[in-house]
Amino acid sequence: MNLSSSLVERAVEEFSRLPGIGKRTALRLVLHLLNQEESEATSFGEAIIKLRKDIKYCEKCNNISDLDICEICTDHNRDQTIICVVEDIRDVMAIEHTQQYPGVYHVLGGIINPMNGIGPGDLNINSLLNKFATDKIKEVILALSSSMEGDTTSFYLYKKIEQYQVPVTIIARGIAVGDELEFVDDVTLARSIINRTPYESVLTTK
Amino acid sequence: MNLSSSLVERAVEEFSRLPGIGKRTALRLVLHLLNQEESEATSFGEAIIKLRKDIKYCEKCNNISDLDICEICTDHNRDQTIICVVEDIRDVMAIEHTQQYPGVYHVLGGIINPMNGIGPGDLNINSLLNKFATDKIKEVILALSSSMEGDTTSFYLYKKIEQYQVPVTIIARGIAVGDELEFVDDVTLARSIINRTPYESVLTTK
Repeated sequence: MNLSSSLVERAVEEFSRLPGIGKRTALRLVLHLLNQEESEATSFGEAIIKLRKDIKYCEKCNNISDLDICEICTDHNRDQTIICVVEDIRDVMAIEHTQQYPGVYHVLGGIINPMNGIGPGDLNINSLLNKFATDKIKEVILALSSSMEGDTTSFYLYKKIEQYQVPVTIIARGIAVGDELEFVDDVTLARSIINRTPYESVLTTK
Repeated sequence: MNLSSSLVERAVEEFSRLPGIGKRTALRLVLHLLNQEESEATSFGEAIIKLRKDIKYCEKCNNISDLDICEICTDHNRDQTIICVVEDIRDVMAIEHTQQYPGVYHVLGGIINPMNGIGPGDLNINSLLNKFATDKIKEVILALSSSMEGDTTSFYLYKKIEQYQVPVTIIARGIAVGDELEFVDDVTLARSIINRTPYESVLTTK
């Protein structure tokens, strides 16, 4: 694309590196920024530079944080003996949004994915295991995606945690709320029958 | 959205101000940037700041440019006596992409749109009219959108240019290449019959 301005060309180039943004959308965003006040464009650019430069990760759970230890890990109202293991910070946000979880988190920073060259050594697994050695942990909840990679990672963690004799649970797999039974796949339906729960549990969570 | 990091919150806020980008997409882009090298995020941020700060507009045609006068206006191979009037720089790119236009441009910077409070005074119309007073112009081509606002602006310009006795043309409206006749709207179809062209002109542009 000949854009007759190297500044515009560079900005389009940078924008189109973002996931899901092609050259056309990038150009639209760049032209939008050109129509903004200079202070607004500067503020946007600075936010991006500071984001990556000054971001901190909680030393305990690897969640993003403004402080060395994140708000959740320092919250005395939360049960520090229950750890929920998640793939990334988006999952922390999703679970926090339900307002149903009283414990703390441990962010792995990914899941085991040999196709993408991600092995256990690339994830924050050792820091998780260290917690079992030093702290008194009552329960570990594995809350990973229900994909092949997620299940592999869950199993790997389960085998690693076994030696510490900490109860390991996994989030329930079953029929999503609102789903029609006839359209549910076989594996999920079979699992939901095997892992059926007392009817009272439905009543209490409503 | 509680994102437990004010840096992430600010970056999401800035991204979601862009057109067509909601909070969820903004968060996805921000998390992507967090996974990049610091140098890449810095380069992205700087590109945005420089874009708005250092951008230049051609003094003759208002197109974006790296120099005071853009490449098109300084190109001796282009006919400087034919001016194509367009709404914004995206239209320059679109017409340049066809590689069919031998003249130069004049970018209005918008079209007359009373609903959005844009009147003739907000557009680069005077600098266009000055060209007729000082330079020898053989033809003005109005290449604005085929909308109510575009047609209004074309008519306004036509009346303004009249006194300079410069031939004014307007880009052809008709059936788009590849369109099925039965699905074309009445106004377009009627116009395409009234403004029919000699068959030879089809043969030469193929």
